[in-house]
Amino acid sequence: MASNVNKNEAITSREVDFAKWYTDVCRKAELMDYGSVKGFINYLPYGYAIWEEIQNYLNKRFKEHGAQNVYLPLVIPSSLFNKEKEHIEGFAPEALVATMGGGERLSDPLIIRPTSEVLFSDLFKRNVTSYRDLPMLLNQWCSVVRWEKTTRPFLRGAEFLWQEGHCLFETAEQARENVLSMLQVYDDCGKDLLAVPFIKGKKTEHEKFAGANATYTIEALMPDGQALQSGTSHDLGQGFAEAFGIRFLGRSNTLEAPYQTSWGVSTRLLGAIIMVHGDDNGLVLPPAVAPIQVVIVPIRQDAEGILPKCNEIAAKLKEKGIRVLVDSTDRTPGWKFAQWEMKGVPVRLELGPRDLAENKVVMTKRVNGEKVVASIEEIEEAIPNLLQVVHKEMYQKAKDFLDSHIYEAHDLEELKEKLNQGGYVKMAFCGDPECEDKIKEITKGGTARCIYKEEVPEGTLCPVCGKEAKLIAYFARAY
Amino acid sequence: MASNVNKNEAITSREVDFAKWYTDVCRKAELMDYGSVKGFINYLPYGYAIWEEIQNYLNKRFKEHGAQNVYLPLVIPSSLFNKEKEHIEGFAPEALVATMGGGERLSDPLIIRPTSEVLFSDLFKRNVTSYRDLPMLLNQWCSVVRWEKTTRPFLRGAEFLWQEGHCLFETAEQARENVLSMLQVYDDCGKDLLAVPFIKGKKTEHEKFAGANATYTIEALMPDGQALQSGTSHDLGQGFAEAFGIRFLGRSNTLEAPYQTSWGVSTRLLGAIIMVHGDDNGLVLPPAVAPIQVVIVPIRQDAEGILPKCNEIAAKLKEKGIRVLVDSTDRTPGWKFAQWEMKGVPVRLELGPRDLAENKVVMTKRVNGEKVVASIEEIEEAIPNLLQVVHKEMYQKAKDFLDSHIYEAHDLEELKEKLNQGGYVKMAFCGDPECEDKIKEITKGGTARCIYKEEVPEGTLCPVCGKEAKLIAYFARAY
Repeated sequence: MASNVNKNEAITSREVDFAKWYTDVCRKAELMDYGSVKGFINYLPYGYAIWEEIQNYLNKRFKEHGAQNVYLPLVIPSSLFNKEKEHIEGFAPEALVATMGGGERLSDPLIIRPTSEVLFSDLFKRNVTSYRDLPMLLNQWCSVVRWEKTTRPFLRGAEFLWQEGHCLFETAEQARENVLSMLQVYDDCGKDLLAVPFIKGKKTEHEKFAGANATYTIEALMPDGQALQSGTSHDLGQGFAEAFGIRFLGRSNTLEAPYQTSWGVSTRLLGAIIMVHGDDNGLVLPPAVAPIQVVIVPIRQDAEGILPKCNEIAAKLKEKGIRVLVDSTDRTPGWKFAQWEMKGVPVRLELGPRDLAENKVVMTKRVNGEKVVASIEEIEEAIPNLLQVVHKEMYQKAKDFLDSHIYEAHDLEELKEKLNQGGYVKMAFCGDPECEDKIKEITKGGTARCIYKEEVPEGTLCPVCGKEAKLIAYFARAY
Repeated sequence: MASNVNKNEAITSREVDFAKWYTDVCRKAELMDYGSVKGFINYLPYGYAIWEEIQNYLNKRFKEHGAQNVYLPLVIPSSLFNKEKEHIEGFAPEALVATMGGGERLSDPLIIRPTSEVLFSDLFKRNVTSYRDLPMLLNQWCSVVRWEKTTRPFLRGAEFLWQEGHCLFETAEQARENVLSMLQVYDDCGKDLLAVPFIKGKKTEHEKFAGANATYTIEALMPDGQALQSGTSHDLGQGFAEAFGIRFLGRSNTLEAPYQTSWGVSTRLLGAIIMVHGDDNGLVLPPAVAPIQVVIVPIRQDAEGILPKCNEIAAKLKEKGIRVLVDSTDRTPGWKFAQWEMKGVPVRLELGPRDLAENKVVMTKRVNGEKVVASIEEIEEAIPNLLQVVHKEMYQKAKDFLDSHIYEAHDLEELKEKLNQGGYVKMAFCGDPECEDKIKEITKGGTARCIYKEEVPEGTLCPVCGKEAKLIAYFARAY
């Protein structure tokens, strides 16, 4: 689709304007299209298919942990939303509110869900009565709405797609265990599926979720040196249970409040993939989520036997479960190369008359342009192996970049200087939200992405207030 | 979940109060739960899993027809919605409208999507320029909102889940072919998956979709004699293309307006399953969509070897891809029987000490209570076969009911009388919307569900206006 976007027109280079490069790739790789309301985007087939691969992976993993999918309403009555105080304070400023239904003014305006803790709490209240009902692990795939001023495709939108897990447990330990194992699922998703390495850890008081006891996060590092929060897992404690009156008859026959968790990742992961792997020729997709894993480009496709052989190879690869496409359009091979590079197809396979005569194919890896030659007979083994190699190379490249951009600072000047280089900077501080505010102000946007360690060498002082430091955090500028 | 719903408490019988029976089943089989806003329901795991099976089936079929999934915004600006006149007239009265975003009044209020023709038209306008871009077949899974006064779980809600396909073609013939093949996919879904037979055909002028040239429908028959519209496929012609200015450069190098279609089914299909198959003991699920296809109930589960053998059988069935559960809770077998009957599990497998000694199991079919005995060794073949038999029996039972409730009428008195018996009544009429309005009034709710034939025996007159009859329609009362 989108033939009015000329994919073969060069995109802005990353060096010149990284932000412009990003939106160029989003559009020219046909991942998305702008809608008619600011911040609401159209997820086009090529972008949505990547999200579907992420869904397949996570659904499988969630199920292994005992979670079941549900669907809860799109709207939350204002009156219900107001029940958990911190939560409403966190989300009310960016709410989209429906006030008219069927031509009449609504007496209780409806908030379009920005997240569904409130609705799940309401559901739990009605459906949990005994410890036999616990644990209860539910998950929902949906879109949420947050009326943001500054929006960028996949990274920050007025509407985005996500999953939100919401669980109830008998004990605080079980809840904590769930919070950490779901964080691990997200980390695995980065490693196994997206080829994106994360830094993971607990959020500071300042950065935790509105209404949570503790928030855990996975954070990726973008090539411009900024962090991208890519998923969170919240230990909600008993706060929502108290606010909503959720009670269960415990094993000792007394009424108890359960412990709640919630966890989510969103289409932000697409933003991470685009930025972490992309280059000046466009998108570079990790094989596990690529809608097309191998594109076959016939050279001199009118020559005898070329197209039939391409189709034969494609059929064999399809049987092996490889997502493959033969590009037999009337464009030139050069045009096709550029197009499929823009769309980030992990492996390109070329076959021309000389290859056919020599019974071989040339395979090119999108990640680094390296060429590999294989005989046509062994293609069914060569391609799956090559896709694995590509995944490893992509992950390693991103991991090397992350590892080489972690610094240390011991005072605000050093922090400022190192943040300007881009990357994560480990620094000890007291942990107070006020000091974190000051750090953000002084460094012009540096925030604690997560806690590295909850202990510090004896005698370390907070570089802001001069009081005892209590933790070391990873600071970075962030999307 | 939902332990506060006592599933073993008897439900209202269908004879006594069919509507009450329906909502009892919805709740006690734990398909759904009421939310805090009227008409917005919670889809619980057991209900949502059925929907996921329907999604899997349809996604596969849609893909075979070349459709790709996308996701478009939740909201439509009023200004955009107003572009297609008939369409806005059809949907405006039941719109939910957001007027506040981020604490500020919106200058262009946003309609929460009731359907997305307008958004897809807007997308097509930007992304289609040449005949090379066509056909373009897109599909979206989402929820839509229609502010309905009278709501019933799955059947009519303020919010419901559905899929909406939206396609563009070069020629009217291609569009028409698409409309009919998607209707066939829906019909197949009824036959192959839901074990629900449909009547299918074209809607009359009165009943067609707001903005369509023609609407095709599949209609199921409920046990109370009412029809349930279960899916529609619309030939939109060039109306939206004209209203939105969608143009493409045709093969003869002139700008042309493409032909548009849209087609959808919703969670109404769950309502069809519940009513068509259910009985006074609860839900009866067709095997293809049952979240649990086989439940194994151990008899005297503390006796030696019983539980291990149950688990062994379950493991073998799982390997065959059967969705199976061993109920080893501390309830009595009688309680378990009633519970899994309520939840409509197609096959129950019992295993007690005597069975184990005799190396056999007893299997009971939910649809008719028939028992079948199999040896433990042959269970891996016996169960898949039995599930096929169950599907056929369920479909045939529903088909016999449908076939035996199709009548004919030649005047309004006869129509009225036969509609009162319940079922479909074939009657010739002129096809004018005014006459259809009068038929509805006179018969207290009888509507033309679809056209049976577009020709009538010579000399047949419309029983309302006395003019020449032009078609024979199926009339029925409908949900």
